[in-house]
Parts: sequence; structure tokens; C-alpha cells
Amino acid sequence: MRRYILPVLLTCSLPALAQQKEDDSLAFRRIANEILTNSMAYANLKVLTTEIGGRLAGSPGMVKAEKWGEKALQEAGADTVYLQECMVPHWVRGAKEEARIISRRRDFIPPLAVLALGNSVGSGPAGITAPVIEIASFDDLEAKKDQVKGKIVFYNYHFKPTFIHTFESYGDAVKYRGRGASAAAKYGATAVIVRSMSHGANNFPHTGAMSYDEAYPKIPAIAIGLEDADLLSRRLQDEKDLKVYLRTNAKMLPDTIGHNVIAELKGSEHPEQIITVGGHLDSWDVNEGAHDDGTGCVQAIEILRTFKALGIRPKHTLRIVLFANEENGTRGGKKYAEVAKAKNEQHIFVLESDAGGFTPRGFAFTMPVEKRAKIQSWAPLFRPYDVTDFTGEGGGVDVGQIAEAMGIPMGELLPDSQRYFDLHHAANDVFSAVNKRELELGAFSMAGLLYLVDQYGL
Amino acid sequence: MRRYILPVLLTCSLPALAQQKEDDSLAFRRIANEILTNSMAYANLKVLTTEIGGRLAGSPGMVKAEKWGEKALQEAGADTVYLQECMVPHWVRGAKEEARIISRRRDFIPPLAVLALGNSVGSGPAGITAPVIEIASFDDLEAKKDQVKGKIVFYNYHFKPTFIHTFESYGDAVKYRGRGASAAAKYGATAVIVRSMSHGANNFPHTGAMSYDEAYPKIPAIAIGLEDADLLSRRLQDEKDLKVYLRTNAKMLPDTIGHNVIAELKGSEHPEQIITVGGHLDSWDVNEGAHDDGTGCVQAIEILRTFKALGIRPKHTLRIVLFANEENGTRGGKKYAEVAKAKNEQHIFVLESDAGGFTPRGFAFTMPVEKRAKIQSWAPLFRPYDVTDFTGEGGGVDVGQIAEAMGIPMGELLPDSQRYFDLHHAANDVFSAVNKRELELGAFSMAGLLYLVDQYGL
Repeated sequence: MRRYILPVLLTCSLPALAQQKEDDSLAFRRIANEILTNSMAYANLKVLTTEIGGRLAGSPGMVKAEKWGEKALQEAGADTVYLQECMVPHWVRGAKEEARIISRRRDFIPPLAVLALGNSVGSGPAGITAPVIEIASFDDLEAKKDQVKGKIVFYNYHFKPTFIHTFESYGDAVKYRGRGASAAAKYGATAVIVRSMSHGANNFPHTGAMSYDEAYPKIPAIAIGLEDADLLSRRLQDEKDLKVYLRTNAKMLPDTIGHNVIAELKGSEHPEQIITVGGHLDSWDVNEGAHDDGTGCVQAIEILRTFKALGIRPKHTLRIVLFANEENGTRGGKKYAEVAKAKNEQHIFVLESDAGGFTPRGFAFTMPVEKRAKIQSWAPLFRPYDVTDFTGEGGGVDVGQIAEAMGIPMGELLPDSQRYFDLHHAANDVFSAVNKRELELGAFSMAGLLYLVDQYGL
Repeated sequence: MRRYILPVLLTCSLPALAQQKEDDSLAFRRIANEILTNSMAYANLKVLTTEIGGRLAGSPGMVKAEKWGEKALQEAGADTVYLQECMVPHWVRGAKEEARIISRRRDFIPPLAVLALGNSVGSGPAGITAPVIEIASFDDLEAKKDQVKGKIVFYNYHFKPTFIHTFESYGDAVKYRGRGASAAAKYGATAVIVRSMSHGANNFPHTGAMSYDEAYPKIPAIAIGLEDADLLSRRLQDEKDLKVYLRTNAKMLPDTIGHNVIAELKGSEHPEQIITVGGHLDSWDVNEGAHDDGTGCVQAIEILRTFKALGIRPKHTLRIVLFANEENGTRGGKKYAEVAKAKNEQHIFVLESDAGGFTPRGFAFTMPVEKRAKIQSWAPLFRPYDVTDFTGEGGGVDVGQIAEAMGIPMGELLPDSQRYFDLHHAANDVFSAVNKRELELGAFSMAGLLYLVDQYGL
């Protein structure tokens, strides 16, 4: 289609163009009505989150979630559903972690609420007891590098409240979680404590992936909640030689087998040309993985269900992918890219939803300007649905793999970001934190975009 | 200012105009940073909702809330704070209502979750037991008017999911709550049951104001949750002569004294010209009145605090009003209009926040086109904050009184509307349902708009 749509548009009369716009507008209305009235997204999410729950790579939840995904995609009406095998890391948290402030004042201090960071090593059964040094930033660490040896480094870098889009705050702060342990181990630290990547008004610790630089000793790494981080900081002001005891029981087991769960609606005109949409099926082990990323999975499935329910047979092949192991390895996204490249598949667009099931505000894209301009020309169709932002750069970790490997245009749904980091990677990312309509409007936005990409190409 | 800003703008050079835009943009950034970093809105809301809670007109909560409002406004830095007395209705719910399905099948059916509608009469201590007739709409009522006598009318009108803006669904459905009782009493009904005005995925009943047509007998009126409404409808399909027992204990007492709580920052150039911003201090008795409308109150207070904190002395007098009795009488809004008119006050703009403390999407206005065009010319300043919708018509129930009485331009904050009717007038409208940043971004949006209205007039 994309090969001849432009000449057609250029030669068609203005009334025909107006008719086409009206048809698209009516198609949008039909898609929205179908999803807002008959969506299965919320019911599907309920099963995935409350019956299966946490589903980290390698866990029993992963296996159950893969089975659930196959079944949900079949029920949504896929032509074919299949599993794409990939090796995934197998990190386990082990018994519950703990950490306590040990003060000379001997007053009662409740235990810190902690979560070991994903991929981190355990402390050993005896735990670690050491003085704590508070570090404000990596620059601060360099300045204090001679004081770090034998201590627990406490990165108390604050999630900045003044960014309007919270993912910018995350991008700004997450390096302390990701590579803080090795940066501290370089100077002899025994463990690290990281202030959670959040500005939630609560004390939930937020886990998330970290990685070690093999050049330095692997030391335990935990996140603590914001209230505890403030408490620890205050106590350190008063008592410079304050100690913390911490014990973590995590370990990395050998890689194991996981799967991307893939479904297709075969294209009626260009079955060899593929449009991919997906979210990731894995989640952290400490919650139900609702907004991260159960919502992305059920939205992708909902697009398929809606096209089938409305009798929309795509011209290009629509592929739904529930990616494995986004959280601590991206092995699913990498495998998907690797196989597509090996088979020399033709992909025209890849789209992801992995920023929460909140009210959609727009999309971010990484693609050449003329393709973006084409999408932006569709903006008026989205306006009645309050989906208005088509300006940002972005894509998503999973679809980013194939986009980069093969030079495919990519996009991601941009939901309202204000609530995401209240619950991201924390125990409160649960089904009850998802609003049915917000979830559905996100599914509609993606369905509408894919409808247009399928109709007119990119 | 508004009298000579236009000539100044027309004669100023382009570089000066660019400078002014940059200054406004910097002012916006300062306001946003101040609110996102140091806001008192969330802390204030916590006290109002969790320490005072429900505060219906005439209740002890109303009196506590007025005292709280005075104190919070003083602490925010008002030049003056005063109470404006008004008589308010005094409706009391009495002991907890109840309703049960009485089936010939004699199987166990849990009691219906019910709330008497605000302003409704009680059933008397014996309650009412009667057959139920399900009514789909007022047209359906007319068609079945001969079957209504002696029965309980069950309005099972569904909140439409296909409107994108949920206030349109509300506007479509709320007439059954508002005047359904008298419409049914006209044909001899003994009571009415209303399907709640919500599409929340739960069973909370939603109360709200109703009124009687004095021409017909006053009959009890209750709301039931959506799951119970579906249950009752299903049971009626199977068992046409199904009965319901209901008992409500509500009554209307004589009017009592309430107050608008008003604070001012005196204008430095035009103290006689007034800009009003507010929310309503009352709430229903069954919840904490968080989104309705604690958030509007604390946002209005936050604007005052922010102007003081940043040393922004308005040119016009900024008046913060916490209105009395919006929910079941609008007496506060009416009194404010009446006094302003009697004193022949000069008002240049009135703004309200009463649609929840969710992420702001824009503003709705009721004003002449040239004033709206002026506001729309400011839209680029709001764009970095994702506040983009300035097209809708609207105002708000409280500021609508003075706007109509005196022909004042009015506006209202438009927060994202998807979650509002999950909790509106129901037991789950509580502090924990409010997100701190969403609340703050709403306060920022209003502060920014009022900053511009103050700088450049309308």
C-alpha cells in the first residue's frame, strides 16, 4: 500500500479526500465505541495480575503468564499464536531482605522497608553491618572516594519534582540504581543503599534492574522508600558513625528458557509486511505487574480483539508480541530482533506500550521526519479523544531492539505520567491501581494509530 | 491594566514582545517549580479530608471545615480572611439506610448497597415493601405509566461509556437522580431506586442532590451500585413480581447558618477590581470529600500561598472563596453573587476548580469571543505543562452564580475526567485517591492563568 498511496492521494479530488477523512473519523468512532463498550482488556488484566501476579523471568509466574498469553490471544481471535523461545536470566530474591539502622542512641527505630535491586548479589547469611556514608551524586562520590572504604554507600539522590514529565526525573536519577553499586565498590564500599526512584508520597521501596561492572567486587544493593531515606539522612546528620545492618538473599542462577508469546492477524494485501505491537509479559516479583506492564499486554491483545470484532482485516500482517524478560535482561526484545533479521522479515512499524495504563496523551516516535509528518497529519483524528501529543522522541526498550537492528520506525504510547513512579517496581503496582477507562482509551489510541498505519503505510 | 495594555502591545517593538513572552514563560516556570517543590496543597488536603472528613451543609463537619479554611488561608499569607454568612439547607441522612431484594425463590441475596439521595425524605420506620418496575428512561416511564402505581420505580439508565469526557455521560444520566422521584410519584410510585451515576468497576452507591416537584407526593429515593443494579435487573427478568424492601431515615431540618470563607490579596494597582478563584468547602456526608471538592479548595489556597512565596503582588485584588453548600443548594455561590451585586463590585474574572484533582488538561470558559481569543493566545505558555485544551464552554456551579448575575467572564479547570465518576459522591472519594502531583499541576495551571489575567486583563 505504501508504494502507491501517495500518487493516489495526489491525483484524487478534494471531495474524495474529505470523504476519506470522514471515513477515517467514523472508523475511529467505531473502534472507540467497541473498546469502551466491549473491551476485554480490564478482565484480562484482572486474571494476569490477581491470579498470576508477579512473573519475573525464570519464575513459575513466567510460565503461567506465557500460558495465559497464548490463551488470551487465541480467544481474541488470532490466526496463529506461537511461542518464540529465548534464554532468560534467572535472578531470585530469596528470603525476604532486611535492613536496620543501628544507633548509639538505642532508641527504637522500625526496620527499614527495603527491596534488593534486581540482579544484585546477596549479602551472605550473616548480613553486613557497616557505617554509612551519604552520597548526593556521582560527583559527590568522587569527592569523598577516600572515605568510602569499608562503608555502606547511601545514594540519596532525589527524584526531581520539577520535571513535568516524570520519565525525565527517572532518566535523571536511575543511574544510581543501575550502576551505583560498582561505582561504590570501586572505592571499597561493602554495600549500597539507593533512595527509590519515585516521588510517591509513601514509603514503598522500588526495586529495578542494576548491573555490575566486572572490574570491581559485586556488592549487595538495596532500595529504600523515601520516608526511610529521609529518616536515614536525618539520623546521619546527628550521628556520623551510625551503622546499618542489612541482609539480602538474592542470587543469579543459570539462564533458563523463556518465550515471547506472539500472535498474528495475516495481512490481506501484504502479508509479508509486518506491523508489530506489544508490551512485556514479565514483571518484578514484588507486585502484580499491573501498570508495568500488564496493561501494555492487554492493550495489545485488545487491538487484535477489536479488529476481529469489527471485521477489520488488516492489509499488512498485524503481529502482537508479549515480550519476555524486559525487566532484567531485554532478552525477549533482543530475540525478536535477531529472528526477524535472520529471516529478513519486512517490518514497517513497531509500537510499544510500556509506560503504564493511564489516560493516553499521545505518542512518541523515532523515525525519519517525513514519516513523522505523515503521522502528525493524522492528529486531527485523535483530537476528539484528547490524544494530542505527537512531538516527542521515543520508542520503548523492547521494540527498540528491532528498530535499531533493522532501521524500523518505532513508536510508543505516551500515557499521562504523573502516577507511574508512585508504584513503578513497588509493591503497590497492583490491579486496583488501574482505571478501566484509562486502560481502554490507551488501547483505543494504539488501535487507531495502527489502523491508519495499516491503511496508508508510513 | 486592561484599559491600556492593548495600545501598549500594539506600539511596542517585536523584540519587546518577545521579551514579554520570555518573561511570562519564566514566571510560569517559577510558579511551577514553587508548587511542585513546596506546595502545601497535599498536606492541607490531608487535614481537611482525613481529620475533618464529610462536611455537608449544616453538619458539625461544616463548622470545622470553615474554621480550617480560615486558618489555612491565613497561613497561606492572605491580607484579610473573613466569613460571609449565608443560610444553608440542613439535610440529614439519619441512621444507615437499607434495602433488600425479596424473592419468592428464598435464596440468599446479600443486602443492596444503598445511599439515600440528598434532600430526599425518609421512608418512615417501617420502611416500604413493594413490587419493582424497571424503567429504562423517562420515555419508558411514560409508556408504562399505568403500571407504576404502588410500585418502586427502578431507573436503570446506564451511564454511557462512549462519551470520551465523562461529564457528558453525567449530564446525560443525572436527570434520573435529580427529578426521577417526582416523575415517578406523579404516577403513584411509592419510592425510587436509581442506578448510580458512574461507570466505575465496583459496587459503590453514589448519592447526590435531588429535588421534589411540590405538585406530587414526596417519596423516598435511593441510589444503588452498578453491580446491584445489574443484579436487580437480572432478578426482575426471572421474577416479574419481585419485591424490594427499603428503609431510609433522611429528613430536611430547618435552614441553618453556614459561611463562604473568603480571603484577599489586595491589588497593588486596581484594588477595586477583583479576580475570584475558588472551590466548594462542603462535601457529601458519606466520604472525605477529597476530589469533590477538597482538591479545589486546597488548589485555590495554594495559588495564594504561591503568589506570596514568590513575591507576586497582584495588580488586581485576588479573592479566594471556599464556597458553602454547593452540593445540595448552591447557597454559597448565590450569596457571593448577591453581595457582589448589592455592593456593585467590579469583577473581571471568576475561576473554579470543581471537577477533581486530576491531571489538568485545560480550561473551559464562558465569555465573549474576543476575551477567549486573548486567553487562547496564551496557550503556548501552557504547552510545556501539557495543558492544551482551551476550547470548551463551561464555568462551574458556584462561580456561575455571579457570572450570570453580573455578566462576568468565567472559567473552570478541566482535569482529566476518566476517574472522577468512579468515586464522585461515593464512599471511595477519599484522600488516598488523590495523587500529589496531579493536584499540584492543577494548582499550577490555575495560578498561571490568573497570573496572566492579572498582568494583562481580559
